[in-house]
Amino acid sequence: QSPRSAASQLRVTDISPPNTIMRPQSLHGPSPVTTFGPKACMLQNPHTVMHIQDPASQRLTWNKPPKSVLVIKKIRDASLLQPFKELCMFLTEMKDLIVYVEKKVLEDPAISDDENFGAITKKFCTFRDDLDDISNRVDFIICLGGDGTLLYASSLFQESVPPVMAFHLGSLGFLTPFKFDTYQSQVTQIIEGNAAIVLRSRLKVRVLKENCEKKARVDDNCIILTNGDVESSRRAVQYQVLNEVVVDRGPSSYLSNVDLFLDGHLITTVQGDGVIVSTPTGSTAYAVAAGASMIHPNVPAIMITPICPHSLSFRPIVVPAGVELKIMLSREARNTAWVSFDGRKRQEICHGDSITITTSCFPVPSICFRDPVNDWFESLAQCIFKVFSKVSRTP
Amino acid sequence: QSPRSAASQLRVTDISPPNTIMRPQSLHGPSPVTTFGPKACMLQNPHTVMHIQDPASQRLTWNKPPKSVLVIKKIRDASLLQPFKELCMFLTEMKDLIVYVEKKVLEDPAISDDENFGAITKKFCTFRDDLDDISNRVDFIICLGGDGTLLYASSLFQESVPPVMAFHLGSLGFLTPFKFDTYQSQVTQIIEGNAAIVLRSRLKVRVLKENCEKKARVDDNCIILTNGDVESSRRAVQYQVLNEVVVDRGPSSYLSNVDLFLDGHLITTVQGDGVIVSTPTGSTAYAVAAGASMIHPNVPAIMITPICPHSLSFRPIVVPAGVELKIMLSREARNTAWVSFDGRKRQEICHGDSITITTSCFPVPSICFRDPVNDWFESLAQCIFKVFSKVSRTP
Amino acid sequence: QSPRSAASQLRVTDISPPNTIMRPQSLHGPSPVTTFGPKACMLQNPHTVMHIQDPASQRLTWNKPPKSVLVIKKIRDASLLQPFKELCMFLTEMKDLIVYVEKKVLEDPAISDDENFGAITKKFCTFRDDLDDISNRVDFIICLGGDGTLLYASSLFQESVPPVMAFHLGSLGFLTPFKFDTYQSQVTQIIEGNAAIVLRSRLKVRVLKENCEKKARVDDNCIILTNGDVESSRRAVQYQVLNEVVVDRGPSSYLSNVDLFLDGHLITTVQGDGVIVSTPTGSTAYAVAAGASMIHPNVPAIMITPICPHSLSFRPIVVPAGVELKIMLSREARNTAWVSFDGRKRQEICHGDSITITTSCFPVPSICFRDPVNDWFESLAQCIFKVFSKVSRTP
Amino acid sequence: QSPRSAASQLRVTDISPPNTIMRPQSLHGPSPVTTFGPKACMLQNPHTVMHIQDPASQRLTWNKPPKSVLVIKKIRDASLLQPFKELCMFLTEMKDLIVYVEKKVLEDPAISDDENFGAITKKFCTFRDDLDDISNRVDFIICLGGDGTLLYASSLFQESVPPVMAFHLGSLGFLTPFKFDTYQSQVTQIIEGNAAIVLRSRLKVRVLKENCEKKARVDDNCIILTNGDVESSRRAVQYQVLNEVVVDRGPSSYLSNVDLFLDGHLITTVQGDGVIVSTPTGSTAYAVAAGASMIHPNVPAIMITPICPHSLSFRPIVVPAGVELKIMLSREARNTAWVSFDGRKRQEICHGDSITITTSCFPVPSICFRDPVNDWFESLAQCIFKVFSKVSRTP
Repeated sequence: QSPRSAASQLRVTDISPPNTIMRPQSLHGPSPVTTFGPKACMLQNPHTVMHIQDPASQRLTWNKPPKSVLVIKKIRDASLLQPFKELCMFLTEMKDLIVYVEKKVLEDPAISDDENFGAITKKFCTFRDDLDDISNRVDFIICLGGDGTLLYASSLFQESVPPVMAFHLGSLGFLTPFKFDTYQSQVTQIIEGNAAIVLRSRLKVRVLKENCEKKARVDDNCIILTNGDVESSRRAVQYQVLNEVVVDRGPSSYLSNVDLFLDGHLITTVQGDGVIVSTPTGSTAYAVAAGASMIHPNVPAIMITPICPHSLSFRPIVVPAGVELKIMLSREARNTAWVSFDGRKRQEICHGDSITITTSCFPVPSICFRDPVNDWFESLAQCIFKVFSKVSRTP
Repeated sequence: QSPRSAASQLRVTDISPPNTIMRPQSLHGPSPVTTFGPKACMLQNPHTVMHIQDPASQRLTWNKPPKSVLVIKKIRDASLLQPFKELCMFLTEMKDLIVYVEKKVLEDPAISDDENFGAITKKFCTFRDDLDDISNRVDFIICLGGDGTLLYASSLFQESVPPVMAFHLGSLGFLTPFKFDTYQSQVTQIIEGNAAIVLRSRLKVRVLKENCEKKARVDDNCIILTNGDVESSRRAVQYQVLNEVVVDRGPSSYLSNVDLFLDGHLITTVQGDGVIVSTPTGSTAYAVAAGASMIHPNVPAIMITPICPHSLSFRPIVVPAGVELKIMLSREARNTAWVSFDGRKRQEICHGDSITITTSCFPVPSICFRDPVNDWFESLAQCIFKVFSKVSRTP
Repeated sequence: QSPRSAASQLRVTDISPPNTIMRPQSLHGPSPVTTFGPKACMLQNPHTVMHIQDPASQRLTWNKPPKSVLVIKKIRDASLLQPFKELCMFLTEMKDLIVYVEKKVLEDPAISDDENFGAITKKFCTFRDDLDDISNRVDFIICLGGDGTLLYASSLFQESVPPVMAFHLGSLGFLTPFKFDTYQSQVTQIIEGNAAIVLRSRLKVRVLKENCEKKARVDDNCIILTNGDVESSRRAVQYQVLNEVVVDRGPSSYLSNVDLFLDGHLITTVQGDGVIVSTPTGSTAYAVAAGASMIHPNVPAIMITPICPHSLSFRPIVVPAGVELKIMLSREARNTAWVSFDGRKRQEICHGDSITITTSCFPVPSICFRDPVNDWFESLAQCIFKVFSKVSRTP
Repeated sequence: QSPRSAASQLRVTDISPPNTIMRPQSLHGPSPVTTFGPKACMLQNPHTVMHIQDPASQRLTWNKPPKSVLVIKKIRDASLLQPFKELCMFLTEMKDLIVYVEKKVLEDPAISDDENFGAITKKFCTFRDDLDDISNRVDFIICLGGDGTLLYASSLFQESVPPVMAFHLGSLGFLTPFKFDTYQSQVTQIIEGNAAIVLRSRLKVRVLKENCEKKARVDDNCIILTNGDVESSRRAVQYQVLNEVVVDRGPSSYLSNVDLFLDGHLITTVQGDGVIVSTPTGSTAYAVAAGASMIHPNVPAIMITPICPHSLSFRPIVVPAGVELKIMLSREARNTAWVSFDGRKRQEICHGDSITITTSCFPVPSICFRDPVNDWFESLAQCIFKVFSKVSRTP
């Protein structure tokens, strides 16, 4: 019997498991009426209608049984070694899966010196970051150890991302809902096809650099754009980010000064330490430290947060997921700016360069421990609400 | 030729007028891929699919030509008298529309003493707030004078709301995109069926009061719930709000202490001056003063903003529009709380009472001056970005 | 040998106990040079020179041995009953002190029903809040149970305040540095004259009400000001506050609208939920929840914090302790405002009424556990710094 | 007749000019009572008493008539050229003063090409920044053009600073109270000895670097500390800052991680973009953009403001001016940090290096247009209060 049909059988029982709230409407919100008063209505235009699966009932299934799994471990954390070994042995020996691991993880002496484990590692497939492409070889991903592992996983897949199951070892994170204690039953359950997922939107970011030096290192997803003119070579690079794009003043003490365009119109100039363009997933990371609100990952939106803005009334802004943003250095800017993507690939932005940002159609399918709403509020409760600062207030 | 078919003719040319950005994807965001890596995919469930019109291309049309218009004027503002009279005469005389006006507006001596205008007012239909129901008699609404007029318009329509065209006389507001200068051509254009609209979501709020006194004034949309037991009569009242529901400490100096439930689960207890539950429209009103981010009205979301919370790490939260929130007094609360709806109908909340909030399916269809994105950023530019506070920063 | 001379002996050893940092300059800051470049200097004016004891070396001493102690217990907290009884017995039996207790504390059945303790209470002096004046009969004060007890103690003494020793039973508060475990030795040490103190400044607030009704209850520190004119009686009341004066919108949903004067000049109009005028002690209470910074109690300053201001660029302001502030309803205000003092004595403010605020010369001498700087940072560490909210940030 | 005695004559009339509020107490605050209840009092310790001139009555006088003036002009601002020339001619020709100007100001072609002005410039004394020491040759300073000019002036004087008179040409700044229109009479009045001043405190900052490379450029106020050991040379440099010391993550994307010590005790570890230690003068610059309150320059305090802190409950802290702060990289820090002083002299901070900060005894004596309180609130009114962002609030 194929997993596909197993999944089919799930439909009836699993979409609304017994302990789930029967929600009266889609998590996305109710369909609004389309008549307004006695005589007006919305003009119907079938060409511009979207069909959206209710985010509360998005579930993972398999076309074929998964055969390979990428295990990502936070580096430099000794407490993760034992769980990592256990997990890999379980996946290899008990589940008969091909385990992918980054080469430098196995080069850690704490792992390479362990003879017992050494035998197992021989069965692993290894790869080198930025050199080997494993994007079509991994059926799902297991992350061990912190929200950073998910960001790293995201960076490996510039298009479709396999489902991600993320374990926290210590305290619950926003992106790591699973406890390691019962990993065996949890992993088994996922492999067998039974899980709610939250599609974490990513941003598709295109950096267009004018007047690149020809000797520029050609890496990433770089495309050299030439128009026959040797002098003005342009270079476009594309990234997928899960948390945020940050444009800041870099090593300069001076305010950065960047223009922000939305759908081609200049919206404002951001003067200050910089600006963060984040997904809802990223709203609980750098953005919240810069004063943003926390956005649930199922809200289709992009958040724009100024960092220490010169204008004291400039608040974070939340726009629909479908807009296209563009950031360029202002004409008046006396310094360059710097951009990074989920904290990586930091680079300088000069006059004429542009950063174009919109919501990607390749989200990260993140497996839920319970469901998108419960998981998120569980993290909030751990990270925010329980944290009462006990300043005393009158009376 | 009927307006309907006129509207039909509009389809080809108007959905994408020449000066509109050709957006590569829905304003709502792109449809995400539904396959994840080589073997996983999203379980299809046709029963939970929503069909959403791209917010960027939502346009108003008429089933029949509009015959009646409700004119709402900000009270106590002498500068509005002349524009109000002009507009009413235009609508009555030139456009042959039946004008609805609230009775007390005409009772203003500045209007009732004007003999010329008096003749016109005889043709008006008048109504009394909270007493006469005009919800099925008005084809569209014109607001004159400030964001408050739109809130008032919203309060008059508990279900379907006629299209609203809102003029600012002085400075541009978030809800009043039209300038009065060219009102004649603008109104004519709307009547003839040609306009982008933004559907401003409202919150459906249900207040359930335990142990009401029997002599309680029965008003609003009140339903007395009795279960044969004289002592414990319960009363449920429902409101539609466009900006926000505010729960606060009322006349007390003590912190309010309310429990916040989401889809039936206790999320947190809010200790502080209170909590604001707002629509995206309301995010630029009270909520932003309490520290919230500004949310574009086309983002399907509800915002929860604590007011001066005891817990310094409690940030505003943005959740999907489809959740159901419930607010109750905490068991430990030593005082009652107070609730208001778009600043109206203020009432006390005692132990056992509950306030249930979710997104309504009756939005306010607000006519755009240009389109939802341009209008909003134009307001932002006026209200926020141009307002540079000139504190000097090193260097 | 009298305590006075005992105190004299302390001078040498105690001003700089062994474990104290030898500070190179006064905690207040260094005396600035008074010559500026080769030729300029500050004009000397002996009439305007102040003589300030270095706050870091302010210490308590006794002119005569203390004979009476006021014990203040947080009400409605069962966990405090046993410590309260123990402490009172220790003070009465072992230290031979006259214990003052508020009458209603002893009327609590949990105390009045305890026969063993009943015998002791017969020796106590009791008083009724707002009726009996004990301001000249108490040599020092012991607070049990929370920052609120110190506010209550402050309210009992409108002029000179006896030294206050404040115990926390549960978690450390900003105003309650002592742990109860070792109360016997700690109290003994204080009585014998050996303690650093921090002088917590208070605000002297004068409320002047125009057109009071003659039947107004004459209470507090009320003075009826009549100028022979029966119709326009004015009433002035004065308060000493330790945390803050709050002016807010009271039961109204509408913005409050108050004018803020500094040394007689109109500084700004505050539109919003209200305004908090606080001492440094109050900066960690309501003010911090409204966005203020935390000010060490030895900084001579007054803080003005708007509550949810309409103007997004209106930040909290810190002014020198010697200014005189005045708050009045704005001419444009459509509603009254409400004022409270350390959360008490809430009253309405109408057009023409004024609230005048300046630093009082009667601070609360609060006994330190270690010293003013260590105690404060110990509270911060407990209340703020240890409270890391674990939002994850990239990378 | 000498200026000194002229100054003496001023005493009677000028300390309280007719339009000045007769303040009932020192701007610094009232002297608190020193007896607490019937028996307690403050231990007198004459050795720790400070004598402070009331900040509201601090006035400038001259020991000898001023002979030299340093004119500082904002560079790259064409609108300042004409005022600069006019002013210099007035000072040279009419007032017979020796004008000091930085060399590169005169090298601007717009100045060097002006033949008329060229003749005048021959009489000027020029100097080169960082090379020539003019600290004992300038009797007072005139700044033209923006708050940055005052920061530059401050950087030239590491010890006693001559009085500064600062003109704004465009909009009023926090540090530039004078309008240029009536500069002749204003300058004349100052030279003749008649002015209120505000002493703007500065921070004395000492950077101690471990293991410096021997070839390190020896500049600034650098002292090489050697202890006979060639390998571990240490270098100490000292700066005077008027606005702030900023420690940040520099070119790194990673959080900075610095330990903050107060009087030798570890207070907290700041995780985030960095930390700002500012004077009250600096509170309205970078610090306010990072969320700080605005502090009047006469409040003796130091402000510590975290930049985008990881801990959401970490608020800005205001401590007494006399404390000694120390900042070091945390042991756990994976990256270095960067420090700058009023936006200048940016340098890397490595493990073991330390930054020690306390209030300097060399303030900047800034000449007031009216008086310290009026001038500050006039700037606030211009920069903050008039800037109402017009978000509309319900109702």
